[in-house]
Amino acid sequence: MQKNAQEGTKEIVFYTNPESRGCIVRRMLEELGVPYTTKVLSYNGDMKTSEYLKINPLGKVPALKHGDLVVTEAAAICAYLADRFPEKHLAPSLDSPERGTYYRWLFFAAGPVEMATSAKACGWDLNENQQMVGSGTHKDVLEALELAISNGPYICGEQFTAADVYVGSHISWGMQFKTLEERPSFKAYVERIDARPGIKRADDLDNQAKIALQTSSE
Amino acid sequence: MQKNAQEGTKEIVFYTNPESRGCIVRRMLEELGVPYTTKVLSYNGDMKTSEYLKINPLGKVPALKHGDLVVTEAAAICAYLADRFPEKHLAPSLDSPERGTYYRWLFFAAGPVEMATSAKACGWDLNENQQMVGSGTHKDVLEALELAISNGPYICGEQFTAADVYVGSHISWGMQFKTLEERPSFKAYVERIDARPGIKRADDLDNQAKIALQTSSE
Repeated sequence: MQKNAQEGTKEIVFYTNPESRGCIVRRMLEELGVPYTTKVLSYNGDMKTSEYLKINPLGKVPALKHGDLVVTEAAAICAYLADRFPEKHLAPSLDSPERGTYYRWLFFAAGPVEMATSAKACGWDLNENQQMVGSGTHKDVLEALELAISNGPYICGEQFTAADVYVGSHISWGMQFKTLEERPSFKAYVERIDARPGIKRADDLDNQAKIALQTSSE
Repeated sequence: MQKNAQEGTKEIVFYTNPESRGCIVRRMLEELGVPYTTKVLSYNGDMKTSEYLKINPLGKVPALKHGDLVVTEAAAICAYLADRFPEKHLAPSLDSPERGTYYRWLFFAAGPVEMATSAKACGWDLNENQQMVGSGTHKDVLEALELAISNGPYICGEQFTAADVYVGSHISWGMQFKTLEERPSFKAYVERIDARPGIKRADDLDNQAKIALQTSSE
């Protein structure tokens, strides 16, 4: 258990803002149940300090520091943590077919779902630009998401994985912000995810962080 | 070696079009050097047959069938193949920090780079929509790509991985289609990738497929 002993000494520092995609990473960290330190950064100022730009030159959150390693992109952080703590079983094993299903929907949410929800929010027309944009139309994306969650309680069947943390958050916030339409299957899936103690704990922590940020800026 | 013996009997079927993101998957398959069967589908017709819609309900390529498993999304297929054939060393090991770097840039290309290049091609303004769109501005994306390739010959340092197949293809085609500006570091990196025998073999196969498609449609 040399590896785990070493992992244990490496600090995880989580840079976030409670109104960002960082909430997805918080959910992953709480589902994982490993210790971590949170640094809440405000949008105006904190994310553009020279200290933080050394960590993420894009000046965005979320970012994760694990020892000397920096990981950005919410989905990348989820996939990395799942692999780095295999004893938590938040990713299918490398030699299982579910590994393909897992990546399929993680990347589908990071690409086409981000594209479809952003286009909706910004008023961009995906139908007109199908040759250029790889995501397919908004309707295509909805149909594919139905397929993603059709195989069981979770994306990989019985096993809850980082793909559920990531895709579940996208579906939940998409319905909330009206960038994805409400469908009965989406609502049932999101309820299943939201009922998990780790997810609840994460959302509570981010609600508290939101209040603390509002109070400090008043 | 029970596992490898079983893998050997599972057929890999690769559905593609030589003018699609399928070229990225072809590069991955040729770098991997495992046997596979190619099915070239035309945009008008082949991708919308009921037979193909059973494989990918979105009616898009690329898709990969491995035994009964279907994987879509070019990046997902690359990550899946790298994990499923660990003896090919096209992904950093699970317990290495490079695993985080690997995911970081795979997801960065699948999300923000796809967004920035699509926005450029379609005339969408990312600067105006920074609160809604997670990718950052076009300039942010270029700066981040510089960072991605700054650590050595390859994204994960000395080790060539599926992240280079994927990110390298995006940078190459971005410069070619003028959706990413030419930078000396990008050109040097792309030259390094393009010089690899597996990459060359893949591109040759897709050029042949392109000619065959044109001939058959005349």
